[in-house]
Amino acid sequence: MTVSFDSTNVLSFMNSSELDNISEFVKQAHHQIHQQTGPGSDYLGWVDWPINYDKEEFDRVKLAATRIQQQSDALVVIGIGGSYLGSKAAIEALSHTFHNQIKGNTEVYFAGHNISSTYIEHLLQVLEGKDVSINVISKSGTTTEPALAFRIFRNFMEKKYGKEEARNRIYVTTDQSKGALRKLAGEEGYETFVIPNDIGGRYSVLTPVGLLPMAVAGLNVDQVMDGATAAYHKYNDPNLATNASYQYAAVRNIFYNKGKSVELFVSYEPGLHFVAEWWKQLFGESEGKDEKGLFPASVNFSTDLHSMGQYVQEGRRLFFETVLQIKHSSIERIIQEDPDNIDGLNFLTGKTMDDVNKKAALGTTLAHIDGGVPNLLIELDELNEFTFGELVYFFEKACAISGTLLGVNPFDQPGVEAYKKNMFALLGKDGFEKEKEELENRLSTLG
Amino acid sequence: MTVSFDSTNVLSFMNSSELDNISEFVKQAHHQIHQQTGPGSDYLGWVDWPINYDKEEFDRVKLAATRIQQQSDALVVIGIGGSYLGSKAAIEALSHTFHNQIKGNTEVYFAGHNISSTYIEHLLQVLEGKDVSINVISKSGTTTEPALAFRIFRNFMEKKYGKEEARNRIYVTTDQSKGALRKLAGEEGYETFVIPNDIGGRYSVLTPVGLLPMAVAGLNVDQVMDGATAAYHKYNDPNLATNASYQYAAVRNIFYNKGKSVELFVSYEPGLHFVAEWWKQLFGESEGKDEKGLFPASVNFSTDLHSMGQYVQEGRRLFFETVLQIKHSSIERIIQEDPDNIDGLNFLTGKTMDDVNKKAALGTTLAHIDGGVPNLLIELDELNEFTFGELVYFFEKACAISGTLLGVNPFDQPGVEAYKKNMFALLGKDGFEKEKEELENRLSTLG
Repeated sequence: MTVSFDSTNVLSFMNSSELDNISEFVKQAHHQIHQQTGPGSDYLGWVDWPINYDKEEFDRVKLAATRIQQQSDALVVIGIGGSYLGSKAAIEALSHTFHNQIKGNTEVYFAGHNISSTYIEHLLQVLEGKDVSINVISKSGTTTEPALAFRIFRNFMEKKYGKEEARNRIYVTTDQSKGALRKLAGEEGYETFVIPNDIGGRYSVLTPVGLLPMAVAGLNVDQVMDGATAAYHKYNDPNLATNASYQYAAVRNIFYNKGKSVELFVSYEPGLHFVAEWWKQLFGESEGKDEKGLFPASVNFSTDLHSMGQYVQEGRRLFFETVLQIKHSSIERIIQEDPDNIDGLNFLTGKTMDDVNKKAALGTTLAHIDGGVPNLLIELDELNEFTFGELVYFFEKACAISGTLLGVNPFDQPGVEAYKKNMFALLGKDGFEKEKEELENRLSTLG
Repeated sequence: MTVSFDSTNVLSFMNSSELDNISEFVKQAHHQIHQQTGPGSDYLGWVDWPINYDKEEFDRVKLAATRIQQQSDALVVIGIGGSYLGSKAAIEALSHTFHNQIKGNTEVYFAGHNISSTYIEHLLQVLEGKDVSINVISKSGTTTEPALAFRIFRNFMEKKYGKEEARNRIYVTTDQSKGALRKLAGEEGYETFVIPNDIGGRYSVLTPVGLLPMAVAGLNVDQVMDGATAAYHKYNDPNLATNASYQYAAVRNIFYNKGKSVELFVSYEPGLHFVAEWWKQLFGESEGKDEKGLFPASVNFSTDLHSMGQYVQEGRRLFFETVLQIKHSSIERIIQEDPDNIDGLNFLTGKTMDDVNKKAALGTTLAHIDGGVPNLLIELDELNEFTFGELVYFFEKACAISGTLLGVNPFDQPGVEAYKKNMFALLGKDGFEKEKEELENRLSTLG
């Protein structure tokens, strides 16, 4: 994994001394994180996780995955936010593009990440006639979206299989000791996995939260953890000059201070779409507070060069780009000569599709630099489980440093409660009577 | 279809006189568009299209769709940008969530919208053993992405079916008279449909570009056009006070002038994801030029309330939200009582999922207003073909007015060429020798 901030793409937009100028602050942020003295230090379990994770539980995750593959045609993963984005990102990036349609694969579906009756009804239809297992992922067990979906699917499973057999097909990832889901799992005897107390949702992809669905989809989770461990050692260095993860954090900070307000995550493989979504939660939720933070957005090029490309080239200069590039595609196609050459593309004969994709990327980078868009490049040699694990830890570490530099608590998310409180009040939940009255007054006088 | 800009969500962030103050400019923009006197007036064919479209061709679209449904298990739609986003948006919004996995449906796949060898290889794998038809959509026939995909699929079809039968299965949507694809279609005798000269890609969803794939997916394209026609009459009124489409344009313009730089498109149904992508191209490509324009971004709530929600609630106050809400869900589920009430959600017993989704939306709107985010609300009574057609025209008209108010040419996209020029030079295309030399010098001195 290499990260480049060379003169081609970044240094024409900043002085190299700007990095030097904040290197001591980066060192300070590093120490705050490693010595647990900064804001949010109760949520630093992810830092040493690649070397400290529970190996016995990790083996149970793999065994459970094998059992699910044997017992079922499809796994339904119930979770929202950090409880689904990590595994979704991994599966989309590393599995077959049409994973659920390929014979022999254990299909993986997500639920409990929306409140759409259409979605859940359609999901139940596509599961008809299939053997199903469930992995419900929720720290508390009371988050509305997954709790509603789990009500429906628990009922579905008990009707389909009877209470006894349903118990063998429901897997619970939750708090070690507290909460509604832990209690239910104890009573019912569901197999359980732990969401560690000191790891927040957006940092949980390398725990059973992410690993069990990945393993069921057929991904090699040993290699995911090996990649994360390699990154743990690689990005454990307080020196900005030699730590690429911290360099990414520092450059983000520099462009933010220069007035950029949006970071645009760019990839050239459709399978990376949900890596961008995972990245958005990681950075947006960590930094978007106290009226601060880069607004995280994403595009899939070259697809979106034909939709958002015009804006990126010539619209308001609000942003810089962070390009995730895969150096070597594992699948290749050579472009054939066409005798008629009607499309005029015979000059590509003998090149690979990936050659063309890479030249599109390079051409785009150069065009965007000319258009005033600074361009960070993060390159993976290949896209596989190892580099996915590496990339996850690279971003996690960068996010912690970046948020600390910004002066926020990178590990809380106080703003997520605001809509829930209103929703509960509007729905008449016990204990929200006062809020309900206030909101109804507000709506009636304003409406 | 209703659009609300009431005091609850917008007017606490602006004075009502601000709308009055620009009403004459809106009228002027209206006249420039209807009298074809503004910038880009060669591309106004979409304005009268809902009443002027070629009815004979429209009938041929429907016949071709029926023939494709009869002859094939799957249709591959080859196109990029405006040649795929409209039909993709319609199919995702209006068909089954798992359309391609439901027996009896004609599967619809997209290709030629990326340069990923992985994607195309996986697509060929999922098509194995299936009967296939192709709809290639390109004005010129030489745009790299779809042209490369069409090379591969034309070859695939001729190998699978022989040249003769392949001809019966390839449908071409292209320029009326010019270009490589028109020429090839003439020589091979493919059935063709026209991309009108005076309608740009991002405005083409109501032409055969969008309609043929929609019809193959089983959508009622008569109703799509009926909805567009209704919107044509509804939004044909130069008065800001009575034209909701123009009000949307005006409010965007007002918030832009107040310093907002991002518009966040929000929906609460997962199926609307690609409506947002289509909307991003429409507005981003129309307005993102001359270093101007709102940056278009999108989220799917409540899903993304657990990822981007923190930023939206408490991050930098860069944006306003435009919420697309569906008043009545066509599919409903009543929430059942749970005897144990372990998740504490029994207070929802007897309510529908959609009730909860709507209260989540209302609670979110109120929370975001409290957080300083102005909130526009666009409501469709139901989500169906008619309202989709209506919505498309609503946005098209609003975009034309909005771009005209901004002082740009809303109908060109000069910036899209920049990456192509570099890409062709880097790939060694004839005629780009000078650019190639320049780029290579630049890369060698800087790299």
